[in-house]
Amino acid sequence: MSLPRTRLATDARREQLLDAGVALLARRSWEEVSIDGIASACGVSRGLLYHYFSGKREFYVATVEQAVARMHAIEPELTLPPTEQLRVGLERYFATVAEEADAHAVLRGVSPSDGELQELLERDRAAFADRVLAGMPGVNEGSPLAHATARAWIGAVEQAGREWLQRPEIPREHLAAVLADALIASMLAAARLDPSIEVPPEVAAAVGGSILEAVEAAQAEQSPPGGTR
Amino acid sequence: MSLPRTRLATDARREQLLDAGVALLARRSWEEVSIDGIASACGVSRGLLYHYFSGKREFYVATVEQAVARMHAIEPELTLPPTEQLRVGLERYFATVAEEADAHAVLRGVSPSDGELQELLERDRAAFADRVLAGMPGVNEGSPLAHATARAWIGAVEQAGREWLQRPEIPREHLAAVLADALIASMLAAARLDPSIEVPPEVAAAVGGSILEAVEAAQAEQSPPGGTR
Repeated sequence: MSLPRTRLATDARREQLLDAGVALLARRSWEEVSIDGIASACGVSRGLLYHYFSGKREFYVATVEQAVARMHAIEPELTLPPTEQLRVGLERYFATVAEEADAHAVLRGVSPSDGELQELLERDRAAFADRVLAGMPGVNEGSPLAHATARAWIGAVEQAGREWLQRPEIPREHLAAVLADALIASMLAAARLDPSIEVPPEVAAAVGGSILEAVEAAQAEQSPPGGTR
Repeated sequence: MSLPRTRLATDARREQLLDAGVALLARRSWEEVSIDGIASACGVSRGLLYHYFSGKREFYVATVEQAVARMHAIEPELTLPPTEQLRVGLERYFATVAEEADAHAVLRGVSPSDGELQELLERDRAAFADRVLAGMPGVNEGSPLAHATARAWIGAVEQAGREWLQRPEIPREHLAAVLADALIASMLAAARLDPSIEVPPEVAAAVGGSILEAVEAAQAEQSPPGGTR
């Protein structure tokens, strides 16, 4: 606290280095870059890099943390009803996947055998699941099935983000709508199996209504008018 | 075709080596094993290994293919109605995740920067998505949104499988029920947005009915009849 101005400058410089790290490691794998390659990509001397990071590994871990932070700029829109929060949050997620393509690539590039970083990603996924559950008032956050449901759904969101980067012709509002209904329907299925999970009726009605419409439309198509049902 | 008996023996031996490879690479990363380590783990000479595989890389690729094949022993139960096929297929998937834990670990261990193997896994995921869509008669397999929906859902299934290995206390029938409803609800949401997707009414009704029950139960809880429950 004694040198706020210096610390600020230090933090800003560190941040710049990490952003350069995100851009670099989105394109090259961690194994194939050297500390000299990092310094040169960051436009700084090797010595300066060592001033901020003890070595290549510390720089890599901090870069992955930076990528996680950049993917997380999405704050819930607490003034909206829960189902709208969900839809808007998902649309923003896809926007972030596009805008933060480098951060997304760095996270995708983490090796499955890198225990330390997999744990970091796992903590991040757990925090995301907690936010999802907190956004569904009434859902019992202590229920293992509610957690498993939220985490499986996050798997769908992550996969949809990856696919969408490759096939951006699908409107992101469509993906958001599909994923929102998937979460609510899964949570309702979970609530049927674990009575400690309660999905608020206004949330259930959001998906229930649209499913009913779809069922009725499908039935209308099968039994043409005149064949009264 | 001229030496069926010899070829059979050859194939069986190759298969044995690959099963030993799956067991080995479920525990050690591909980077850290040597060709000598592989030969010793397989209980054969380095020379014999070279007789079947040109080197460590070819052995690794074949081991991953073997792991994919072992995860795929699940055949759809075509005599059941679509929603039952889905539920039974999912329960078998979780059974396979448990029984084929080594194959599962090998597939999880593939590095995201390994382009060739990521492509192999991607083809496998695409084939899984095709089976999912084929199992929902009436769904337009040419619709990009239907494909994206199926693939996102596969992301949820894969994530649920990974979670379940870590928290096996959740009954797999519960996860199967949650995921089945998630797929049907997502496909219904997709059908609302892309009219070329048609979900058969009997499929829609399977999830529609259960969601209605849940909505009604939730509402009954909020407004108890006469204020007494």
